[in-house]
Order: sequence, then structure tokens, then C-alpha cells
Amino acid sequence: MSDAKSKFLEVYSLLKSQLLNDPAFEFTDESHQWVDRMLDYNVPTGKLYRGLAVVDCYKSLKEGKELVDDEILLACVLGWCIEWLQACAVVLDDIMDNSQTRRGKPCWFRLPKVGFIAINDGILLFNHVHRILKMYFREKPYYVDLLELFGEVEFQSVSGEMIDLITTHTGAKDLSNYSLSLYHRIVEYKGAYYSIYLPVACALVMAGENVENHVEVKKILVEITIYFQIQDDYQDCFGDPKATGKVGTDIEDCKCTWFVVKALELANEEQKKLLYENYGKADPACVAKVRELYQVLGLQGIYAEYERETYEKLSKTIKAHPNKAVQALWGRFVETRWTVERAGHAAGNS
Amino acid sequence: MSDAKSKFLEVYSLLKSQLLNDPAFEFTDESHQWVDRMLDYNVPTGKLYRGLAVVDCYKSLKEGKELVDDEILLACVLGWCIEWLQACAVVLDDIMDNSQTRRGKPCWFRLPKVGFIAINDGILLFNHVHRILKMYFREKPYYVDLLELFGEVEFQSVSGEMIDLITTHTGAKDLSNYSLSLYHRIVEYKGAYYSIYLPVACALVMAGENVENHVEVKKILVEITIYFQIQDDYQDCFGDPKATGKVGTDIEDCKCTWFVVKALELANEEQKKLLYENYGKADPACVAKVRELYQVLGLQGIYAEYERETYEKLSKTIKAHPNKAVQALWGRFVETRWTVERAGHAAGNS
Repeated sequence: MSDAKSKFLEVYSLLKSQLLNDPAFEFTDESHQWVDRMLDYNVPTGKLYRGLAVVDCYKSLKEGKELVDDEILLACVLGWCIEWLQACAVVLDDIMDNSQTRRGKPCWFRLPKVGFIAINDGILLFNHVHRILKMYFREKPYYVDLLELFGEVEFQSVSGEMIDLITTHTGAKDLSNYSLSLYHRIVEYKGAYYSIYLPVACALVMAGENVENHVEVKKILVEITIYFQIQDDYQDCFGDPKATGKVGTDIEDCKCTWFVVKALELANEEQKKLLYENYGKADPACVAKVRELYQVLGLQGIYAEYERETYEKLSKTIKAHPNKAVQALWGRFVETRWTVERAGHAAGNS
Repeated sequence: MSDAKSKFLEVYSLLKSQLLNDPAFEFTDESHQWVDRMLDYNVPTGKLYRGLAVVDCYKSLKEGKELVDDEILLACVLGWCIEWLQACAVVLDDIMDNSQTRRGKPCWFRLPKVGFIAINDGILLFNHVHRILKMYFREKPYYVDLLELFGEVEFQSVSGEMIDLITTHTGAKDLSNYSLSLYHRIVEYKGAYYSIYLPVACALVMAGENVENHVEVKKILVEITIYFQIQDDYQDCFGDPKATGKVGTDIEDCKCTWFVVKALELANEEQKKLLYENYGKADPACVAKVRELYQVLGLQGIYAEYERETYEKLSKTIKAHPNKAVQALWGRFVETRWTVERAGHAAGNS
């Protein structure tokens, strides 16, 4: 494990113990154990890119200046706030999507003792973010900025999740609504702000910047998110489950993906009819028909071209980008993602 | 409808339209309709005591001073923030409790188009509180105090709900944990802070007070909550469904109520065994046995005495209380509650 990661994990233990000793609540022994276990199960068990990205971004903004220990600690704390939000999303999404496993273990709500108590746990995770911000930042001049940044990004993610849920629900009856612009809107609100923009914005706020003055940063980060999401869509449909660690179900779940949108764009009337009849059905025969249509339409090739072009374009833009935090984020994410991507490509082409 | 209530409801419409035009999110037509309908279904459909109490409490603190329109508006806005929290709790609790109806209509998640999307709606309601606070209070000197007040009270309610859920889960196998002190702790954290303390605290903050200086207010408000909750427990067990509007299921659901705690206190070994064997079972025969035991132990009489004594004690303390907001809250709540209570008493004694 890298030094940065082990330092980051130490901060998790510190935060957990502080939350378990929050003077605003008298824990019973049982509830103390519950929260301890719930946090360990859901918070530090992801890939932690988002959280670690805050530290990378902050360091890049302070390049050339000496950092004191306290600054790194605070950057780690903000990183964990994002990981806490991620845990909340994971716990609740798994219930809404009726999922079975996550990160190679049963979903939290699937544990026999947990069940729907997981809903309350999700809200607790959401609330913890504000407890943590208060513990570490209430004396900082940028405290209100942080609270509002998190409040806004939370609002955007929940709203993005809402359009995703409603779209999928309606799409199950009628795909005519699916379009590239709707796809972009879902990705932007559901994923871009909390997942890609928030690490950079946290670093900017800590460095004394007003995020309102960095609209162009937001714009490029949304573009990056769309690029990553299209990669994810590819993996879901054509990736090797052994390499990606999960079996994709976007077609069965009637998700508004880049692939279905492209297929609707390119399909003739007959192919469109096939898509309307088979998309969003659990039956493996239906799924196979959709996948076959993607192949007939040459979507893998179109994807490969899009992917290469976009990577080049983004790399070039980011290399020339005046904001060092954007470069740091790209470095952190793209490096890890390429590994998955290469494995996926190989699987997809094999 | 009273003037105060119709003014209060006007503010709801205003807030709804502002949230539906939040520039931080680009609504699709469908998501706009969704939120509109979700809010109307869940937010202004309760009894609104908590929200109206903020206005009462604020007016009482400003007695003798002239109020400008803006102050009443702001007190209404804070009142609605509490109602929004209440709506969040209701939407999510109904899923966790697997309830069928609420306020004479199907629970929100029971609507065919809604289902588990209700979980995301619950989080959105939670998040709206912070959007509203930002819209109306960000320029106020007490903005951070408000954010922290809501953050703390939310944390306490979610933690209280957690001990309630875990207790009930464990209680289903073993009642030995149930005690008056556990009961008090659940009522304090689950209900007292957001339901009874928060209206008073909002009024105090708006009036320029530091809530930290009003520890004795918090104490008496917790006592009031316990008194109200014991009344609710009575209604659940002995009230007339026609008068209370719902069929109680505390015994079936293995809830840690005042009655089961008292019964465990007073029962001999044989009666305790009966309780252990029949409490928390859906079978009507088991429920009847528990209710019979309550009668054998004379719990209705003990309750009646507790109720009268506590009412007198609280009335006396509150009448002499230096904080006028406490008196206003008591006035708002006890008036409406007495109506239910009298009907309940009549039913219980009939």
C-alpha cells in the first residue's frame, strides 16, 4: 500500500472514533457496535479514488510551497467526506436497484440483521458528513463555503439520481425519450459533481479560492465524467466480468446508456422495433438480441474511435489547463481507470 | 382555516416554486412534475403543529415589539424546514416499517409509480432543508448557527431512530433489554429534538439568542416529549381507531413502549413469561393476551394517574417558566393534543 493511502486510512480510523464519541448522542452499547460495523463495512471498502484525489489536487495547488501536517490532515478529512457520501449512495442505491453484491460481498441491506435498517444507515452516513465538517472546519474562514459546496453537490447528485430512476422507469415502457442530451444530463448531475468535481472543488476551497470563479474547471470536469461514464457503459456491456469484477445488467435494467442512445440514433425502423421489444427485459434471449444489434450497428468500432479521439482531446486540453488540480485529478483517475480499460478492451475484443 | 395557517400554507407554495426553479439543477419536465407531486403528497399534508409552533414561539419571544412582515415570513420558512424534515422521516419510516397507509392515504412508496424511488425522494427532502436555509438565511449573522442546529438535530433523530430499530429487532428475541431508561433515551433522541425542541430553538436563534445558553429549555422540552409519547403509546394500545385515525400495532411490532416497560416492571415470573412469549407476534391471539395482562396489572389506572400528575406538574412548571417560547409551544401542542386525548380517554374507558 502506498504511503498516501495508509496515511489516508489512518484518518478514517480517527474520524470513526470521533463520530462514535459525538457528545450530541448517548450511544447504547448496541448502537455503538452497529455504527462501528456499518462504517467499516461500507466506507473504507471502495477504491477511494475520490478521497485520495482531494489530497493529490490540494498538493498540486500548493506546489512549491511547504505543506504542514495539518493541511494534509484536513485534505484527507475532506477526502473522507466524499467517501462518506459515496458510501451513502452505495448503501441506498443497492436497495433501490435490488442488488445482491457489492465489492465482492453481499450488499449491506442483504445482511440478515440489517434489512431496511440500511435506509436509516444511509441517512446517518449523509448526516455524518456535516458532523465531520463541523468538527474540523468550523473555525476556518471557508467553513460556510464548504457547507454550501457539499449542500449543492448533494442536491445535484440526488436530483441526477432522480432523473435516472424516473427515466429508467418510463423507458421500460417507451424508449422514445432516450437521447444523447438526456444521457449527458443524467451523467452530469448524477455523477460529475460529487464524483469528479467535488474533489477538485474541496482542494480549491481549502486553498482559499472561490469556486464560483472556476466555471471552466467545472465544465472540463463534466466532460471528463462523461468520458469515464461511456467507458463504464462499455465495460458493463462488453467487459469481461473476471476483469471488471461484476456482471453488467444495463440492458436488463433498461438504463439510458451511451450504447442504447447510439443504437437508437443509427437504427432503421426494423432495428428500432427490435430494440423497443427487447431492451429492458430480464430474459437472456432479449439481452442477446440487443447485444447482437449493437454489433450489427458496429457500436464497438464507433466506441473505440470515440474513446481514442476523446482521450487525445481531453489529454491535450488538460495538459494545457491552467488549473493544476484538474491535472492532478486526471492523473489519479485516468491511471487507475486505464488499467481496467485495457483489461476490458482485451476482453471486449477477444 | 385560521389566518396563521393560511399564511403558513402560502409560504409552502412559495418555497415549492423556488425549489422547482433551483438554478443548481436543470429539471426535465418529468422530474419537475415528479418533485411537484412528491412535495404536495408528503409535505403540507400533516398536522403542521411543528411548523406553526415556530411562528407562535417567535411571536411570544417578541411580545410587545412590533413585527415586520419579513420576520413572520422567515419564521414560517423555518417552520417549513421542520415540516420538510418530518416529511423525510415519514416517507422513509413508512418503508422501514412496511406501512400501508398514512394520513388516510396510501404511503408514498405504495404508489405504483413510486416504489423504492421513495428512498431517493426521502434524501431529496432532507437535502431541501439546506437549500431553503441557504435561500433565506445566508446573509443573516445566525446562518451558521441555524445550519449547525439542523445538522445536530438531524443527527440526533437519525441516531434515535437507529436505537429504536435495533432495540425492536433485538426485542423480538429477548425483551430483557427493555427498561424505562432505554425508553426515555429512544423518545429523547428520536422525537424530542426535531419535534419539540427544534421549533423553540429556531425561534430562539432568529431572536438572536445562543441556544447553548438555554440548557434548561432543552430539559423541559424533553420532559414534555416523554409526556406526549406516553399519551401516544396509550392511544396506540387503548385508543379508538375511529377517533385516532389509525389502528395501533405497537404490540405486534414489539415496540419498546411505556406500557411494556411498566408491565415488565410489575409482572411476576409467570406473567413475565407470558409477555416474553406473546409480545411482538402478529397473531391476534397473542396481542389479546398482552392487552389482557396490561389490564390485569392495572396499567390503564396507573397511566391515568401518571397522566394527570404529569400534566399538572408540567403545566405548573411551564406557567412559571422564564422562557415565553416554551409556553407558546406548550399552548400550541397541548391544545390540539388534548382534543385527541379526551376522545381517546372516552374510548379507552368505554
